[in-house]
Amino acid sequence: MITALVIGIGTGNPDHLTGEAIGALNRADLFLVADKGPAKQDLALLRTEICRRFIDDDHYAIVEVPDPERGPDAERGNSEYRAGVERWHAERARRYAAAIADSVGDHGTVGFLVLGDPALYDSTIKIVRSIEAHTDLDVELEVVPGISSLALLAARHKITLNRVGYPVHVTTGRRLVEEYRPELGDVAVMLDGSLHCADLLADHPDLVIYWGAQLGLEDEVLISGRLTDVIDRIRAARTAARDRRGWVMDIYLLRPGVAAKSARPGAEVTP
Amino acid sequence: MITALVIGIGTGNPDHLTGEAIGALNRADLFLVADKGPAKQDLALLRTEICRRFIDDDHYAIVEVPDPERGPDAERGNSEYRAGVERWHAERARRYAAAIADSVGDHGTVGFLVLGDPALYDSTIKIVRSIEAHTDLDVELEVVPGISSLALLAARHKITLNRVGYPVHVTTGRRLVEEYRPELGDVAVMLDGSLHCADLLADHPDLVIYWGAQLGLEDEVLISGRLTDVIDRIRAARTAARDRRGWVMDIYLLRPGVAAKSARPGAEVTP
Repeated sequence: MITALVIGIGTGNPDHLTGEAIGALNRADLFLVADKGPAKQDLALLRTEICRRFIDDDHYAIVEVPDPERGPDAERGNSEYRAGVERWHAERARRYAAAIADSVGDHGTVGFLVLGDPALYDSTIKIVRSIEAHTDLDVELEVVPGISSLALLAARHKITLNRVGYPVHVTTGRRLVEEYRPELGDVAVMLDGSLHCADLLADHPDLVIYWGAQLGLEDEVLISGRLTDVIDRIRAARTAARDRRGWVMDIYLLRPGVAAKSARPGAEVTP
Repeated sequence: MITALVIGIGTGNPDHLTGEAIGALNRADLFLVADKGPAKQDLALLRTEICRRFIDDDHYAIVEVPDPERGPDAERGNSEYRAGVERWHAERARRYAAAIADSVGDHGTVGFLVLGDPALYDSTIKIVRSIEAHTDLDVELEVVPGISSLALLAARHKITLNRVGYPVHVTTGRRLVEEYRPELGDVAVMLDGSLHCADLLADHPDLVIYWGAQLGLEDEVLISGRLTDVIDRIRAARTAARDRRGWVMDIYLLRPGVAAKSARPGAEVTP
């Protein structure tokens, strides 16, 4: 039996780990990490720092598992897309299983460190499920919640994500323009590489934005205000943040402005 | 100058505090707590336990601030509703300011402990803002993010809140039936005292629910499955949980079932 601990480590600041997460770190014999993404060197440093700081002994290993090549059949638009993605997931699962078998055999505790919270736009739980589905390993999954980048965005701007009695909608940059309506409430946008919010300005000129990049890190940047007033500053800050590190992670919340149709008379906006 | 620390303490399990939250607890000279709600005795015990466990010295005080009576002009439907609520908020702010002045004068650090995360359906940030607005106190606000009940719900059910590429919508029981469409993605429902999700079954018979009550406490209860199959079990579990403590806090996630119109062919549902 393999115990898989999917551990939310918060947003890059080691002070955001919970006691439960620290306890989980100390149970793992092995940490598996994907070897990918533009931030991979910084993430490797962060993982090393977190393990060094919070784990009491040195009986653990960190192993990188390179993702398999994503063949053309696993690209969007391919007629074999679903089957292609399935094959790619199966191959990835076999690589993880092989790394587990190499390090701990069929009995041990394997940790997966997840930036932010494993519940929001993260694939780690899915990967662990696919190890169960595609290999002979018997896996017991435990999930440790973490501070999400959304919670940190709100804390840094000293706001709530929802206005009193209103909903919050969390979506992706890819979907934002198609989905947006003021009736969704405040809209948090993740995974937006190109500030799609700018495309909403023509129809929603009064939108207010709360934006943050590199949240939890030393070079955290925050900008808020009427979207139309601050979008150029955000673009420039985003580019500058990326130039410093070679990558940028950002997130934002859109709030209907007071002049928006959906706002109740006098509904508060505190940019 | 008063520093107001709004501290997310997670969901009732002291292991869910972050290092940052523990640091903030240790900075406060005074903790202000509202004296209200059916769970107030259990909350008082939890606060005492958290302060005892995590604060290194005993130079702090905990003061309860009773909410003022909410007059009829501050009730929904009253023609003076907005002005009535404003007067009620102003009176509440004056009470908090008086409690601060009594304990620390005009210079000190005041902590507010918030269950879950201060960013989601919590009024504490608003209260601190209203102390600034309605009194002479000069208040500097800091917010410390916490593990939200939503993050814990997902962790306990070992799921992500969003399906891959889909949005998540967070709303209240009061709004659910009016707002619900499968296109919203997974829908998390807070503050629902009467399981309004049951009213969706006629139009959405394939909905899947992930429900949890008393999350983070010893008597945590989890139920998941097709809503139509488990709604009666959830009702019974909810009543039993309330009978044990005199109160119940629950939350749930609704996921479109595979037969729902919005689901892509083969889209996963893992109840």
